[in-house]
Amino acid sequence: MGAKYTIGTIASHSALQILKGAKEEGFNSLLIATPEREKFYRRFKLADDYLVVDNWKDVLSEKVQDELNQKNTIIIPHGSFVEYVGAKELLDFDVPMFGNKAVLEWESDRRKEREWFVKAGVGTPENFNDPSEIDRLTLVKYFGAKGGKGYALVENEEDFYRQFKEFDPEKMQMQEYILGTRSYPHFFYSPLDKENELVGIDLRYESNADGLPRIPTPHYMPPTYVVTGNIPIVLRESLLPRVFDMADSIIKTSKKLFNPGLIGPYSLEMVITDELKFYVFEISARIVGGTNAWIPGSPYTYLKYGENISMGRRIAMEIKRAVNENKLDEVII
Amino acid sequence: MGAKYTIGTIASHSALQILKGAKEEGFNSLLIATPEREKFYRRFKLADDYLVVDNWKDVLSEKVQDELNQKNTIIIPHGSFVEYVGAKELLDFDVPMFGNKAVLEWESDRRKEREWFVKAGVGTPENFNDPSEIDRLTLVKYFGAKGGKGYALVENEEDFYRQFKEFDPEKMQMQEYILGTRSYPHFFYSPLDKENELVGIDLRYESNADGLPRIPTPHYMPPTYVVTGNIPIVLRESLLPRVFDMADSIIKTSKKLFNPGLIGPYSLEMVITDELKFYVFEISARIVGGTNAWIPGSPYTYLKYGENISMGRRIAMEIKRAVNENKLDEVII
Amino acid sequence: MGAKYTIGTIASHSALQILKGAKEEGFNSLLIATPEREKFYRRFKLADDYLVVDNWKDVLSEKVQDELNQKNTIIIPHGSFVEYVGAKELLDFDVPMFGNKAVLEWESDRRKEREWFVKAGVGTPENFNDPSEIDRLTLVKYFGAKGGKGYALVENEEDFYRQFKEFDPEKMQMQEYILGTRSYPHFFYSPLDKENELVGIDLRYESNADGLPRIPTPHYMPPTYVVTGNIPIVLRESLLPRVFDMADSIIKTSKKLFNPGLIGPYSLEMVITDELKFYVFEISARIVGGTNAWIPGSPYTYLKYGENISMGRRIAMEIKRAVNENKLDEVII
Repeated sequence: MGAKYTIGTIASHSALQILKGAKEEGFNSLLIATPEREKFYRRFKLADDYLVVDNWKDVLSEKVQDELNQKNTIIIPHGSFVEYVGAKELLDFDVPMFGNKAVLEWESDRRKEREWFVKAGVGTPENFNDPSEIDRLTLVKYFGAKGGKGYALVENEEDFYRQFKEFDPEKMQMQEYILGTRSYPHFFYSPLDKENELVGIDLRYESNADGLPRIPTPHYMPPTYVVTGNIPIVLRESLLPRVFDMADSIIKTSKKLFNPGLIGPYSLEMVITDELKFYVFEISARIVGGTNAWIPGSPYTYLKYGENISMGRRIAMEIKRAVNENKLDEVII
Repeated sequence: MGAKYTIGTIASHSALQILKGAKEEGFNSLLIATPEREKFYRRFKLADDYLVVDNWKDVLSEKVQDELNQKNTIIIPHGSFVEYVGAKELLDFDVPMFGNKAVLEWESDRRKEREWFVKAGVGTPENFNDPSEIDRLTLVKYFGAKGGKGYALVENEEDFYRQFKEFDPEKMQMQEYILGTRSYPHFFYSPLDKENELVGIDLRYESNADGLPRIPTPHYMPPTYVVTGNIPIVLRESLLPRVFDMADSIIKTSKKLFNPGLIGPYSLEMVITDELKFYVFEISARIVGGTNAWIPGSPYTYLKYGENISMGRRIAMEIKRAVNENKLDEVII
Repeated sequence: MGAKYTIGTIASHSALQILKGAKEEGFNSLLIATPEREKFYRRFKLADDYLVVDNWKDVLSEKVQDELNQKNTIIIPHGSFVEYVGAKELLDFDVPMFGNKAVLEWESDRRKEREWFVKAGVGTPENFNDPSEIDRLTLVKYFGAKGGKGYALVENEEDFYRQFKEFDPEKMQMQEYILGTRSYPHFFYSPLDKENELVGIDLRYESNADGLPRIPTPHYMPPTYVVTGNIPIVLRESLLPRVFDMADSIIKTSKKLFNPGLIGPYSLEMVITDELKFYVFEISARIVGGTNAWIPGSPYTYLKYGENISMGRRIAMEIKRAVNENKLDEVII
């Protein structure tokens, strides 16, 4: 198996482990890259084929789609893939793509995302509908903000208008800031096994929020949250059953909201308070960058598999099994 | 060997790696679980047998003890094991348990713990006997507090009584707060090799102490120290000889205090100042949760063994050797 | 191959992985140790030979040099090696040493280091020539300060003179403090492959700068930056092409400044702002302690090699190839 299928992605985010995982599971690997990015990726010698485009939107061209289909390519969409090509545009992209495209709508609209959390019964921070409601530390997020860019912390209504010209409910979310430890568990939901797997956990390393504490108090300035890297962590083992319960509920609910629901990799972004309450503040319904912290494998994949399984490889394993069992239509929706 | 022995533990804390290590070294593995916990642990397929109890105290029942003994079980006690079942109750538990039970008394009483440190000559923070003595930042800890719950930082006597109704010397410890970097090296003392091994080092990730620095200064509130996870770290290599000297001294002293002394896994919880002085503020005389950060193995076990050795596996290796050399009475006291 | 060569280093810093890597690649391994250090290193059983000296300066004695040469030793210099023996003294050390000795001059003098950065076109913090110029948060560093000792943060001229008796331009550097996330990528430049490889990335864990944020604001005191350990991290994948561009430029420039330029392991110490600008504030032109966080291997070496490659092993791999291809004169300058 595998010889006739190609696993492809675009040159950013978590492409290295996606390519590596594809090779480890016996697939051809293909990278869509701009000329500047190509040089970097060639250093790792992980792609069998390079498809060079002048700009990312060209991914949508008929020529590129034809070439991908000729090579029997299954695309793995990661965060930058969606960002560079466009969530709406991806709906017309006529190349097999791992996962369920319907999830794009549910994670890119913060109100739908919130509906999903509430229906799943997972704890989530309070949302404010108008700046006048802000009565505690609140995080303002633009819809579709990527990599933490454009987040701002506000204290009250006055502070909101000091930082923003106006409130646009179509574009902004105002979310209560929960004090506690952040945690970004990476899950893989296998539609073939009908099971959630914990693949790793990380902590986002953000500029300047993670640099500010190291300078003297009098030099205080507002934190920003641009992701620059990731730190591998593990969670206290006695908390994991509850994390899995949330993940199970998220998947079960997703099947009701957009059948057959979320498929493959995702991450629940949460804060844990000192009373050990969990607040899920976001979901990334694709492979997240934090999985890079656990190449070649995490404690959790080692415990389950006894070998090196990154998220990239876990995806390739599922595709391989789907091919072998003639069930590709269960992993590509 | 191995076939006739079972390694067992209860479903929490570091049970996953204990079960995995048992399997890797050829033992049967057994998990004592409540029904809620059983579901989680079954996901990892690491236990050969499940012994389901309605509540943790049932571990002490004759029925459970009989079943464990019929299966030739050696219990690995971890922090939650002691917490759930009770330190005193464990003394009457009639199933072979890895390690020296006498250590329970020395680590659960903070005054005895301090005596141990002082006799071993390791640096330790100053202790105050009465709130009126508090003349610097001080951490108040309840005896037997688990997972950092119930710790509080106080500034002086007035602050103490603002946070606590009264001072109870039988239940509380007041320990000078040392400023520096925290470090939690995990050791394994092998009674068969008569040697200390460094198995890994972590940093506890605590709510809300590790979340507070990310919010603006004016929103300051008192830190709390509830452990939610662990971050893998390494120490500067030139500091390790001194860390080993402390570990050697702790073991040597333990042999005098409660012969044959501490056996197997333990952790010295310390702060390192910017003058590179070490202050040991606590000892955990069993496997600690921080070892989860270094499954399947740490830099230190790789350097020594050249393969994946977690603390769970290291324990199983010692039992296996004790069985083979007919020395179980040297590891089960 | 390998049998007739010995890889040696002195007992500190990153010696464990250097010895391990030497063994993994089939070399003899030798450790130069003081009697106190010998005990620690023997625990790991990684050195075939121990050369015990009473003090580090004895490394320069004819007797020691003769013994090293009789054993066909290639020395791997790490940070402590340079610190203990002396950068100037090393120039007269007549034992083959991996790398280009000329780099010592360029990294130990902060003005030359800055010239290197500027010529390479990498972003670097502003430098002040006189305390009167200090108009923002500024880090004062003594030339040759090791492990972060002796760094101080100053706010303005007045603060400078409060902390320092006088300004000595021959001994001090005043460097603008850049707010953002720190990052210490470890590179290996292979003169045989003519290629830069990313071997890992860490975060220095510094006392007391990384302990201060956990205490209440009113207890603020000036941060210090003594390295006590390292935390493994990964960088956002989309930032890596730019990190490699900087590394390529640093190597290219080094060939112009001190032909054949920098060879082997080095680290670019940088800050990333929330606008994703990079500021390189220092270069370590040897193996850095942060590589200890990624023994046995990092995500990046796994992606490239598919197995466990630490920096220590990567060095041994290069020497092995140089021996086999008769090109030792390209790696020992």
